[in-house]
Amino acid sequence: MSVGDQVGRFRQLMARDSAPVVGMIGGGQLARMTAAPAAALGIEFRVLAASLDDSAAQVVANPFIGSHDDVNDLLAFAAGCDVITFDHEHVPPHFLEQIQATGVHVRPGPKALLCAQDKAHMRATLGGYNIPMPSWQVVTSVDDVAAFAGLSHWPVVLKTSRGGYDGRGVWIVNDAEHAATVMTHPLAENATWLVEEHVAFERELSAQVARSPHGQAVAYPVVQTTQIDGMCAEVVAPCPGLDDDQAMQAQQIALQIAKDLDVTGMLAVEFFATEDGVYVNELAMRPHNSGHWTIEGACTSQFENHLRAVLDWPLGDPSPRAAHAVMVNIVGTDAGDLTSAFRHVMARDPQAKVHLYGKESRPGRKLGHVTLLGDNVPLLLERARHAAHFISGHIDEGD
Amino acid sequence: MSVGDQVGRFRQLMARDSAPVVGMIGGGQLARMTAAPAAALGIEFRVLAASLDDSAAQVVANPFIGSHDDVNDLLAFAAGCDVITFDHEHVPPHFLEQIQATGVHVRPGPKALLCAQDKAHMRATLGGYNIPMPSWQVVTSVDDVAAFAGLSHWPVVLKTSRGGYDGRGVWIVNDAEHAATVMTHPLAENATWLVEEHVAFERELSAQVARSPHGQAVAYPVVQTTQIDGMCAEVVAPCPGLDDDQAMQAQQIALQIAKDLDVTGMLAVEFFATEDGVYVNELAMRPHNSGHWTIEGACTSQFENHLRAVLDWPLGDPSPRAAHAVMVNIVGTDAGDLTSAFRHVMARDPQAKVHLYGKESRPGRKLGHVTLLGDNVPLLLERARHAAHFISGHIDEGD
Repeated sequence: MSVGDQVGRFRQLMARDSAPVVGMIGGGQLARMTAAPAAALGIEFRVLAASLDDSAAQVVANPFIGSHDDVNDLLAFAAGCDVITFDHEHVPPHFLEQIQATGVHVRPGPKALLCAQDKAHMRATLGGYNIPMPSWQVVTSVDDVAAFAGLSHWPVVLKTSRGGYDGRGVWIVNDAEHAATVMTHPLAENATWLVEEHVAFERELSAQVARSPHGQAVAYPVVQTTQIDGMCAEVVAPCPGLDDDQAMQAQQIALQIAKDLDVTGMLAVEFFATEDGVYVNELAMRPHNSGHWTIEGACTSQFENHLRAVLDWPLGDPSPRAAHAVMVNIVGTDAGDLTSAFRHVMARDPQAKVHLYGKESRPGRKLGHVTLLGDNVPLLLERARHAAHFISGHIDEGD
Repeated sequence: MSVGDQVGRFRQLMARDSAPVVGMIGGGQLARMTAAPAAALGIEFRVLAASLDDSAAQVVANPFIGSHDDVNDLLAFAAGCDVITFDHEHVPPHFLEQIQATGVHVRPGPKALLCAQDKAHMRATLGGYNIPMPSWQVVTSVDDVAAFAGLSHWPVVLKTSRGGYDGRGVWIVNDAEHAATVMTHPLAENATWLVEEHVAFERELSAQVARSPHGQAVAYPVVQTTQIDGMCAEVVAPCPGLDDDQAMQAQQIALQIAKDLDVTGMLAVEFFATEDGVYVNELAMRPHNSGHWTIEGACTSQFENHLRAVLDWPLGDPSPRAAHAVMVNIVGTDAGDLTSAFRHVMARDPQAKVHLYGKESRPGRKLGHVTLLGDNVPLLLERARHAAHFISGHIDEGD
């Protein structure tokens, strides 16, 4: 269907009622999971997806098929929306400014979003607000990396400032030779190399907050995240055994970042937790893998609060519904049909909440997740891992 | 889009993956609320709706626009579905048999469904299984009604056996003259008049069960329902102060009916509760208004268990997530824009879970509902009523 036809159809739809219209750029699983609270709240939810096969495009009415880096597609999609928001951070800021110029709200705004798009810009900006971070430096050569390691220590973390996700574009580098190999990777447009101190963390945390344009903010419980191959694999909410001071420090930093950067919608701040305190690792200005547990585990899910925040509606209660929630990602293997494992998994654990994203199985790809609520974290993890692994086709000896 | 085009598009979609395909006939709010768990479980969910404006058609991918009483539409819709199920009970059974003849499962099957379509047939069938019911009789004249009242007492309940819903087609009749007036109403095709004993109930209950084709069944907690103008207005789950024996009696009757009638999917049995026990009032073989609280209030919602049941997957845990859940319907008034009340309602009660159905506001029409979880039932009801009334545009003095 042409862009013109799609716009025409939206005009027809608009005549239907006075429901607010939220357009989300990107057709991934975050958009897919946002569709449910949008329907519940009577929000007209539109998705700009690259293809009808995209995760969200499979389950929403009238997905708009186009490109997130084609300004004509973006403007056509945004026309008739009350607010534009994001499933991913990859839209060029000057295009977002063009959308804003048409009178459509863009939340989070392009200035805030730049901190989620460019890690060097994020580090420089947060540094200006005295946010605790690993030491870091923009580098252009192996010599720069070696000099930084001389002041800090090997290993160091080498990152591309843009274009990485789920562990891509991040390397732990042990020496100059290793750095030289890594730096042969081509950089994305406008990207630079970034070197960071390798923090010997006790664990990784994520603090999520929702913030609305008029400044209301709510903080979710701080969760523990476990990364495998740089990708979020497991989440325990709230983080077991975290002392109150460190939990509050993480929440306060997340709230401060949301305010200082004028973030609207959900913000996830990922931390390294050490004996000495917490250090900001990454930011995401959208619903985040570390908050999928909130669908069942919190009074208001991250997806609902993202919608409420970008519409400048009062935010929902982020309180947990159970002592603990655990979430384990379903990661692709060579197995194909995921639902063939459902009979086993559902019979074994009638409490397991299974979420699939409608994505084709490929090794290492996030295909879904499993959430369980309860009291006993080790047991919840064991159950959720079993379900997630079984669905992915990866059957452990221990399973 | 022509039926042929729609079928062609579905063929294309089918090539995408091996996800099971569930087709739901009817585009109302039950189909709308089924879309969320369908997406979560990776089920391809299709809806046969009368119009693109239908509640569910607004929020699902590729709604199939057609008529539930046109066999060609039904067969075209069913082609490529693994199983056909229902948002409402109005599909003629012989059309469903034609769908079954093509190899597509119909759940619940036409024989079971007939008990939800025809109240005289339901009474006769349940009578054969010794299910406790009000005394009843098919009548064809006012004299029949008066004779029945002579054996029972005035008032009596006069009903059309088919075509009624939400209190329509049901009258409490005080005398022969009143009966004569009621019986001037035209009957739907194949409908008869039914007279029933007017039960002086202490309260009304609903017991929901899910049952799958291979016979697994789970029972939800028995809830208290409050009808206003014959329409479900409020639900408290579980029913406060219900003695265990009566709760178990209601659950056992619901499980027995599900088994005896070979119901697949969700079954709601509505009861009159009296000092002497419970009496079956109505049946519904689909998700039901008395189970909307399960979206947030139970481990597995009625919508998810309906899908699991009709796919013959193991059923999910129906246990409640909180001591109590209350649900209050949002019923239309003369007010138009429902979301304009959201700022007030959401600011006042950040825990209120609001569900809108995307329907145009008309006086007396179910437009949505509000659910709250917690301990204190009177307080929860007060909060949910305030939110529901405020959204509907009906502001009480007490609000």
